[in-house]
Amino acid sequence: MSGSDASPAASVLTRRRFFESLAAVGGMSLVLSGMEALGFSQASATELPPTLTGGAKNTKVIILGAGLAGMTAAYEMSKAGYQVQILEARDYAGGRCQTARKGFKHTDLLGNTQVCEFDDGHYINHGAWRIPYHHRSTLHYTKSFGVLLESFVNDNDASYVYFEKGKGPLNGKPVRKGEIAADVRGYTAELVAKAASAGALDAPLSGVDRERFVAYLVNEGRLSKSDLTYKGTEGRGFSVHPGAGVNPGPGKELEPFAFKDVLDSNAWRVLSSVTGYEQQRTMLQPIGGMDQIAKAFEKRVAPMIRYSTVVQKIKQSPTGVTVSFKGPDGKLGEVTADYCVCTIPLSVLKQIDLDASAPFKAAMEGVAYAPVNKIGLQMKSRFWEDRHHIYGGHIYTDLAGIGSISLPSYGWQAQKGVLLGYYAFGGEAARISAKSPADRAAFAVAGGQKVFPEYAENFENAFSFSWHLAEHNLGGWAEWGENGRKEAYPILCEPDGRLYLAGEHLSYLGGWQAGAIESAWQQIAKIHARVQQA
Amino acid sequence: MSGSDASPAASVLTRRRFFESLAAVGGMSLVLSGMEALGFSQASATELPPTLTGGAKNTKVIILGAGLAGMTAAYEMSKAGYQVQILEARDYAGGRCQTARKGFKHTDLLGNTQVCEFDDGHYINHGAWRIPYHHRSTLHYTKSFGVLLESFVNDNDASYVYFEKGKGPLNGKPVRKGEIAADVRGYTAELVAKAASAGALDAPLSGVDRERFVAYLVNEGRLSKSDLTYKGTEGRGFSVHPGAGVNPGPGKELEPFAFKDVLDSNAWRVLSSVTGYEQQRTMLQPIGGMDQIAKAFEKRVAPMIRYSTVVQKIKQSPTGVTVSFKGPDGKLGEVTADYCVCTIPLSVLKQIDLDASAPFKAAMEGVAYAPVNKIGLQMKSRFWEDRHHIYGGHIYTDLAGIGSISLPSYGWQAQKGVLLGYYAFGGEAARISAKSPADRAAFAVAGGQKVFPEYAENFENAFSFSWHLAEHNLGGWAEWGENGRKEAYPILCEPDGRLYLAGEHLSYLGGWQAGAIESAWQQIAKIHARVQQA
Repeated sequence: MSGSDASPAASVLTRRRFFESLAAVGGMSLVLSGMEALGFSQASATELPPTLTGGAKNTKVIILGAGLAGMTAAYEMSKAGYQVQILEARDYAGGRCQTARKGFKHTDLLGNTQVCEFDDGHYINHGAWRIPYHHRSTLHYTKSFGVLLESFVNDNDASYVYFEKGKGPLNGKPVRKGEIAADVRGYTAELVAKAASAGALDAPLSGVDRERFVAYLVNEGRLSKSDLTYKGTEGRGFSVHPGAGVNPGPGKELEPFAFKDVLDSNAWRVLSSVTGYEQQRTMLQPIGGMDQIAKAFEKRVAPMIRYSTVVQKIKQSPTGVTVSFKGPDGKLGEVTADYCVCTIPLSVLKQIDLDASAPFKAAMEGVAYAPVNKIGLQMKSRFWEDRHHIYGGHIYTDLAGIGSISLPSYGWQAQKGVLLGYYAFGGEAARISAKSPADRAAFAVAGGQKVFPEYAENFENAFSFSWHLAEHNLGGWAEWGENGRKEAYPILCEPDGRLYLAGEHLSYLGGWQAGAIESAWQQIAKIHARVQQA
Repeated sequence: MSGSDASPAASVLTRRRFFESLAAVGGMSLVLSGMEALGFSQASATELPPTLTGGAKNTKVIILGAGLAGMTAAYEMSKAGYQVQILEARDYAGGRCQTARKGFKHTDLLGNTQVCEFDDGHYINHGAWRIPYHHRSTLHYTKSFGVLLESFVNDNDASYVYFEKGKGPLNGKPVRKGEIAADVRGYTAELVAKAASAGALDAPLSGVDRERFVAYLVNEGRLSKSDLTYKGTEGRGFSVHPGAGVNPGPGKELEPFAFKDVLDSNAWRVLSSVTGYEQQRTMLQPIGGMDQIAKAFEKRVAPMIRYSTVVQKIKQSPTGVTVSFKGPDGKLGEVTADYCVCTIPLSVLKQIDLDASAPFKAAMEGVAYAPVNKIGLQMKSRFWEDRHHIYGGHIYTDLAGIGSISLPSYGWQAQKGVLLGYYAFGGEAARISAKSPADRAAFAVAGGQKVFPEYAENFENAFSFSWHLAEHNLGGWAEWGENGRKEAYPILCEPDGRLYLAGEHLSYLGGWQAGAIESAWQQIAKIHARVQQA
């Protein structure tokens, strides 16, 4: 891949066309360096699918799993002329891109069967549920396929924090996140502004304009300019909202909490002045449920999918891969292809008779899969909106097994709503998932009741999902430890013979749809390069 | 209004029913005190329209203006049995709740006529455009009338700040807000954490756990725990986005800007660690344009509206109010009623022959109206999403006459988009509005080009609106100075004879729809109380 072909054209093209030309000629890594050369610091190698030009040479590919990785591979390879078949264990496609709505049925590995009873129009995305603005690969397909998006409220200062393992008077009380933020930041700014103003910080401030720094602090902390003191702020609300006429005018600003009390509450742990990479705004979601993405893919690759077909054995030869399976009728069968893209989670793949090298199989042991619980609770009124004036976002708690509660970002002001009653990982998730669905719901309702007094009286029905108890998943996502990422991961990113693994587990975007898609892109590009060379 | 009637019932009712009972029996101010007694610190007197029980006693009310204040008054009073007529100067209702979409026509006071040419499905809300979550009165009607809402992205760290009047290397460059925030906050946290850790801040920190304070700073500033140093953060992005496989894994975190450079840029002025009261998330907007609210009201009060009817004179007698007008056919006419609710902006009302007391008329001189400009620019691609990965939010600038540029929060990933090319007030707005519509568009495009290199090449057409040049408005909103608010405002909030003023100008929610609605609620409650006493 040399850049020389593209250079002469660059000066007469718009930059967009320039990059498109680069991609056509030199592939994405050239585009990447081209963009960086032009100063696009956030350039990505992962914005577009690989261009698979040069022909498929009658190559057959068998893809295991019709989740986003598998369907991405099938969609792109079939467009490039490959003969593709997908084996999917379930009778529907999508993998972890699932949405539970009325009639959705799930039986977990403990034998609990649930049929979702949400009212029409309500749903819970119990798998993937958010699309960050920088997940360009996911957004590439929503745009290409016309999957309509709406915004997902991922941060809401009006929402509550409920911490009960701290101390002090704020402990065990729902407190609005914005109030905590205003106070701890205000007091800190006051402290710094006063110290800086008195010259106490001149040494660390060397090279920086002290007055400008104090002006910054006044602005950040909403301090009184005259005495650099934090006295609360209108940003944390009023005792009486400003209204019409003279009575009520705006009421007194709410009294700030004491600095010590805010620090003692531990609630500041949910704050960060800058949102982490994965959680940044703007987030998006498909209108009508995350599975709209799965369905958009499925519409395009359905003829290639054999549903209810469970892989039992993967055997390789120098010329191909043979996959044995149990089909929908219970009968055994097998298919042979030139290459295999296997998107089966490692947690499941480990248990399948797999013909791979010893180091490859050893590497598969190097990853754990996360127990992950979610539960949708249908509430007969949207009390969080009507009574508490919270429109979307999360309620962060330190309640074991609850984790966070999330309010829906769709159906604003509808009569009813389905909220996410817990989103919990790890040991606590495993403990709660051992309960019956009814007891899980009771646990979730009891937790939420600590935050919202209206919770229990509004509860109508629930749908819970535990990814570690889901057959064909056995966990929410791959959790690479530091060693696993260093040692096992690179081995599994490379093909073993004619077997190529793909999925979120083979990306640095673990648990995200973008990881699955970009992993598929990477692996099919490798197969294609091999086919071209053969 | 005594609380005694309600008390016995309280113990056997849910709180919602309790408050409903309170409202029915004692009115909203009793509800307010009841809620506060139960610890609802953000209780509001303005959550629900007044209950107008006891009959209308054949009372006639003439309402001037079919904006939100006028239609609120008409809707609530007609429900309570009042005989209502509305005179509206325009041939459509809504007042400043307007949306420009294909075919929308406007002629300004300079004689410029524009017909909006946006593609179907695209629009600009050139008047009211946002609903904060705490504007419960507006949200009361969207919910009651079934006006569907979607979220409005009012804050987006991925969006740019463009400041060219600061200094240093960041001056005159579009910089992502999140990068500025990460750096200035990170460096500040480092400075404070180190000083506190060395005991240098023990005096101001007295009573506060020093270690907990440092832990808070580490979390807020994303400092390295080991040496309390800010070295950038993944929250501000990577040189290469994390992707699949081993190459690219996540690239290096973007290098932070220098502390001095960030401070020098002035871009920190757009940051505040806590959002101001009026700008807080979550914000909402009606799906399809803000005028969906106006249309929902209009649907309910249209039979009461006389359109294209311009008020010329308002005369009072001890028993009624007579309003003279010029009707749609140019013919003069008049109507007489027992009371008049006048929602005409004071800027316009001042010029009408008005029969009111001298102090009342003097008070009307105590308010200025803001020059306000907006312009919608239709772009043939959504380059801010496709190329810059910015989904909604504002681009804050220090460009005179531009103010901020705002990206649409609807139609994500559509082919085209209409963005708000400027939102500017005051003298600069007046200077730009003196230009022809074509020159205003050229000015807006030249400004945006400084931020987005794709701006000009994508521009298709524009629709600009200047509220100070709009007949029947003569300004965006009332601007009460401190004195005006103290002296003139209270006089105008009270009736003058049988004349009651209403509108955003008679509220502490100036320029917001909630101000118009709540002002109407307050005035009709006064009329109703008077009717009951008569």
